[in-house]
Order: sequence, then structure tokens, then C-alpha cells
Amino acid sequence: MKRVAILGATGSIGRSALGVVDAHPDRVKVVALGAGENAALLADQIAQYQPSVVAVATDAARQELLQRLDAPEHRAFGFGALPAILVGDEGRLAVATHPDADILLCASSGTTSLDAALAAIDAGKTLALANKEVLVMAGEIMVEAARRRGVAILPVDSEHNAIHQCLHGRGASEVRRLVLTASGGPFRTWDDAALLTVRPADALRHPTWQMGKKITIDSATLMNKGLEVIEARWLFGVRGTEIDVVVHPQSIVHSMVALRDGSVIAQLSVTDMKLPIQYAFSYPDRWDGALAPLDVVRMGTLEFHPPNLQRFRCLQLAYDALAHGGAWPAVLNAANEVAVEAFLASQIRFVDIPVVIERALSASVTRTSVPHSLDDVRAADVWARGHARETLRTLPSS
Amino acid sequence: MKRVAILGATGSIGRSALGVVDAHPDRVKVVALGAGENAALLADQIAQYQPSVVAVATDAARQELLQRLDAPEHRAFGFGALPAILVGDEGRLAVATHPDADILLCASSGTTSLDAALAAIDAGKTLALANKEVLVMAGEIMVEAARRRGVAILPVDSEHNAIHQCLHGRGASEVRRLVLTASGGPFRTWDDAALLTVRPADALRHPTWQMGKKITIDSATLMNKGLEVIEARWLFGVRGTEIDVVVHPQSIVHSMVALRDGSVIAQLSVTDMKLPIQYAFSYPDRWDGALAPLDVVRMGTLEFHPPNLQRFRCLQLAYDALAHGGAWPAVLNAANEVAVEAFLASQIRFVDIPVVIERALSASVTRTSVPHSLDDVRAADVWARGHARETLRTLPSS
Repeated sequence: MKRVAILGATGSIGRSALGVVDAHPDRVKVVALGAGENAALLADQIAQYQPSVVAVATDAARQELLQRLDAPEHRAFGFGALPAILVGDEGRLAVATHPDADILLCASSGTTSLDAALAAIDAGKTLALANKEVLVMAGEIMVEAARRRGVAILPVDSEHNAIHQCLHGRGASEVRRLVLTASGGPFRTWDDAALLTVRPADALRHPTWQMGKKITIDSATLMNKGLEVIEARWLFGVRGTEIDVVVHPQSIVHSMVALRDGSVIAQLSVTDMKLPIQYAFSYPDRWDGALAPLDVVRMGTLEFHPPNLQRFRCLQLAYDALAHGGAWPAVLNAANEVAVEAFLASQIRFVDIPVVIERALSASVTRTSVPHSLDDVRAADVWARGHARETLRTLPSS
Repeated sequence: MKRVAILGATGSIGRSALGVVDAHPDRVKVVALGAGENAALLADQIAQYQPSVVAVATDAARQELLQRLDAPEHRAFGFGALPAILVGDEGRLAVATHPDADILLCASSGTTSLDAALAAIDAGKTLALANKEVLVMAGEIMVEAARRRGVAILPVDSEHNAIHQCLHGRGASEVRRLVLTASGGPFRTWDDAALLTVRPADALRHPTWQMGKKITIDSATLMNKGLEVIEARWLFGVRGTEIDVVVHPQSIVHSMVALRDGSVIAQLSVTDMKLPIQYAFSYPDRWDGALAPLDVVRMGTLEFHPPNLQRFRCLQLAYDALAHGGAWPAVLNAANEVAVEAFLASQIRFVDIPVVIERALSASVTRTSVPHSLDDVRAADVWARGHARETLRTLPSS
């Protein structure tokens, strides 16, 4: 029986994770759940999974949750004691370090998970990581902590999970390159002139994956792939120059590993996050799937071609940030978040997203470089957000 | 240093294997070479690799070899003692069981390798197996002997080698299905009427692999894939009903393994037999490749669709033979050899190859079923060849 704590329980990954729990009630037990402010869904989840610790983002969410848990339809579930319901940082840390948990699934987004992820590692929990910021902003700190503590970081991104499956214990001496696949997003075939006209609604139409807004825009700019390159660097201990990106519009091959003798190992599956989540829960075992398996005999045509780094500059900026090192990946990530938010609010054009990021990176050259603590990382994050907001004012509105 | 003995040294696989030796002179040493009657090439190989034991098929070949080794250009290589040069069964067994060899690469074709392969297993040699007949005819006997002796059988067929790489130590409990890829051969898109007109020259034009005549025809009928299904059954301990074939005209994905959770692992590479040969030599290590690696970022379009078992009946017959068991796979193999030879000699039509095989299988129902020894296997082989030759007389000539 694997006992799991989940941060981000009411989000897309969290809900898929609970779907995996539903499929394997005799193999997974939920001991703690953390969410933001969606008290309605969290109340249902608490009634169903009966965790002993629960975290929410705000006091208001806690109050709403208590009221909902007191309502007849939830009392009817008949569980005895209410879980401990904690708020903010304290709540996240309590979920992340729950004494009964074997695994923390870190699926909340943003920088608020940094402390919780590090605390889980320090507490010896296996970290099933679906939050990109944790490794993009603080990869070296996290990986070093995990090494010191002897705990595994299991990637829940479909690409990194694919690489973990392809490696299957193969050591660095066998590996020549990692190859991350990218759907290419909705603008894969658009030219420069067309990209000038992109509206948020266009960018939110992702061809293969149903995801949140921020990550969908990141897929359209290819920044999502850039962030994944940075994550891969830390998860698998390879240099950025040893990580390729290949555009694969069908999203069936989730990533590949090129081995030193010229052989390439790839992982394929249907596009459903339940698969990498279940893999992280079951590892090192593998359980029967809750999904219809990929029908490889009838999968038709798979395409692979190089990304256009001139047209999709965000990916090139991510490679640059990784090559420069220090706080650049954190600055890249923060400036990107500000820019994407501004684009979604129709404040800037799609093509200006990389402009905002590039200016923040350039301006940060003069700042102290290597972040040694999460506080250093957060300082870089705050600085970059401020810089990006300044840049927004100088750009033409969309 | 891996010390290897090679049966079939002058054939296509044997020459590729020596190319691998050339690329890794500090890692592989050739201790024994066996060939058929190509004394000219064998003499060159002896001069270059200086094995201590050599086998040829006939006394005439031995005489020619001695003369060639005595010629000035070979004496000029300056080695001291001539190798022991043995003939026929005695020679093959001496190569297969050479006391200094760690690995036997069994790359000679046909039934003459059966005893040598079994002798190598009994002598504790790792068996790098490129000969299809060994497992098609006597899979259970070979696998049981290898299990008893605790030796590994490493497949050198690109498909089975791919599966070996995909499994990478994963146990049967993780595996749901094996998926062998097939180029589909030159007649992949031909209809029934067109197949009536196939001449040997058409069938010898294979789209992706350069191989010998027999295997090229087998690729055109899909019997090659059928024989590989039977081999896979024995190599990997799965049932025939758990092995799929998918037509993949680009021959870049060499095979796949579908795991129980719905994930699929695939192996890709350029189409060059040096890769699986080197893998077998280096296993469990992996060496730098002598080949240009596959450029996955620019590999373009890969297609996958189901084979047409009504049109390419040989593949269905192979599944049938595996399902029936006993001597059927040996009968299938023998009848196919006779039919392919007759087709190459323009004695029968392409579409009659499965007719010859099917009649032999039907007629063998009444024969004793499970072969317990290589003698039983050879008896089935001889019977089936006789039956197939009888069938040839009843068919319209091409």
C-alpha cells in the first residue's frame, strides 16, 4: 500500500491522481490533501478519501470548507473525526511532510510549492513532481537535497516520465542525448505574419492536450518545452547541450533517449496524465492500467521535425537561460509568467512574450548569479516579475 | 575483452560482425571462424583476425583455403602457425565450443547450425543468435537447454534485439504484448491481382534492408515476420496471441513492448545490422557506435498500420503453426524454404508459396506431434521438404 499526500488536489493533475487512486483502492491510500480555494471540490474529496490532514490557501477557504463538511451530504459519508484543516504555508508543509506519507505528489503550480517540495525531500518522502517551477527555479538545490537525503524525484510531466521509463535504470555512461517531444502547439504551421495576429482564444486551442490556461499558452510559445529542457537537465544530470527538442504533432511518443551506440529508446502512450501519475505511484512496480492501451498497430502516421527556434524564441531563451545558469532560469520563469498573464488579458501581443523575457534576462546579467537558497531564488523571482511588469508598459497593447 | 566465435563469417551478418570487431579492436577478439565454401573471403578473414580454429563446409573448400593461406599475400601477414581447419559438423562444433570463446555468434543459415547452437549452449557460451531456424525449428529445446545451463540467448535479429533493449530486464509480469515491426516488403500496397504477376526480380527489391535472397523473399511474403513471431515466443516466453505485427514501412522503429499499464517502449535506429551485433557483443555494457546515430529530430514521417493477413497468408500460417505447436513450426519453415527456392527458380508463382506451406501443415496433422530432440526436429524437416516438393509438381508453373 502506497500512502500519498497530494498538493494541488483540486487541479487537473490532482483530479487525475485521485482517478488513479479510484482505480487502485487496494494499492494507494490518500493521507493528506492540499488545495487552493476550491472548497466545494475539496469537501467532496475529503468525504471520499478521508485524509487526516488538509491544507487550503486562505482562512476564507477554510471556513467555507468547514461549512461544507458540516452539510448533510458530507456528514452522510459517516466518517468520525474531521481532518486537521490548516492554512497557507503551514498547511502545505503539513501535507508535504505528513508522517504517514510515502510519496508527495506536488501538483500545485507556482512558487508556493518550493518550500513544501524541499520539506518533503528533507522528510525522506519520494517526490512525485508535476510542478515545473520547483526544478526550473531551484533545480540544483532540490537535486542536491534529494541526493543528500537519498530520496527519489519521480517526474510526472509526460515527457520526463517518458525519459524515466526509457532510461529504466540505465546510467549516464550509456546515454548520449535526451530528446523531448513537443506537440508544436496550435501555431506550429503559422508564419511570422500570422503570429502577429494571435489572440488568446487561438492560443488556448491546444491540439492534443487539455490543460490549464498558463501551460496551454506556454505550449503555444514552446516555452513549456523550454522549461522542460531545464527540468530535464536537473532530473537526469545532463547538460543543456545534450537535450534536443523534436516537434511531434501527434503527441504519442512522449520522449526519447539516444544511447551511446546509436540506439534510441522511446516511450509511447495515449495522452492521459493518469499514466505518468500511476507510474510514479507504482514505481518501481507497474500496475495494470485504468486506460485503454495505445493501439500501436493502428496508430497511423507519426511526424517528427525540428522546432523553429527563430519563430518560437521562447525555447531558445530557455536554452540560453540554462547555458547561463545561476538565477537565469528563475528569471526566465518569472518573466514568462508575467508576460503570459498580460497576453491572456490582451495587454500584449503573442509575439511580445519573448520580448518581456529577453529584457529581464539581459537586465539580470549584472545581478549576483548563483542562488544558494530558496530565499535567493524567490528574490530573483520577485525582481524578475517587477522588471517584466515594467517592460509591459513599454510594449504596444494587443 | 570479449572473445567471439562466428559461424557464418563470410555471410552478410558475419561480415557486419567483423566490421564491429574492426571498430572495437581493444574490446573484441575473434577466436574461431566458420564459413561455407567461400574460401577466398575466409582466407582474408583468417589473415586479418588470426583465429585459432576455422571451419568450412567441405573438403574441397578446405583444400582451397590451405592454398590461399599459402599464397604470398597472406603469408605476408606474418602469422606463425596456421589455424586448425576442420570440415563439416566437426568443424562447426569446434567453432561453437572453442574453449576460449565467451560468445558464439550463430549467423549461418539453415538447419546445419542446430547442433552447433545447442553445443555452444551446453558449453556455457553466450549465444548471439542471428539464425532464424534454430528457434523456429527447435525453440523449446534450445530455450530449455539455455535455462538449464544458465546461459543467455541474445537475439541479433533487429526486431528481437529491439525487444531485448526495450525490456531491459523488465520481467514478464510487466509486459502485456510484444509488437514486431515489419517493413511490409515491396508488395505492401499491391492488390491481389497484382500479386499474381510477381516475378523473383520484383520480390528481391526490398525497400529498406539489403539482405540475402531467401530472407528478402520471406520479407515480401511476410513469412519472415511469421518466423520472427515464433522466435519471439521462445526468446521472451510469451504466447503467440500476445505478439502483434505492425507494418512500418520506414524500418526505423525496430520493435516495441507494450507494458501492463498501457505504456509502450520502442527501440529506434538506423537500419544497419552492426547495431544489434555490437549490442550482443557488448551486453550488458553498451559501447560507442561505429555508425552515424539516428537523427530523430529530422526523421520525418513514420507510419504504422496493420498487416493484411488475408493477402499475406504466410504470416497467418506462422501464427497457426505456433498455436498448433509440436513440429508445425519446423514443418512451416521447411516447406517455406522449398517453396521460396521454387519461386526463385520461377517454378511456382509468388502466391503459391503459402499453398505449399499450408498443404504441408495440413498433412502433418496426423504425424507425431512434439519433437523431443534435434533428431525429431530434423525428421520433421526432412518430411516437410519431401511433402513440399510433391506439392510443387501439382502447381501451375509461373
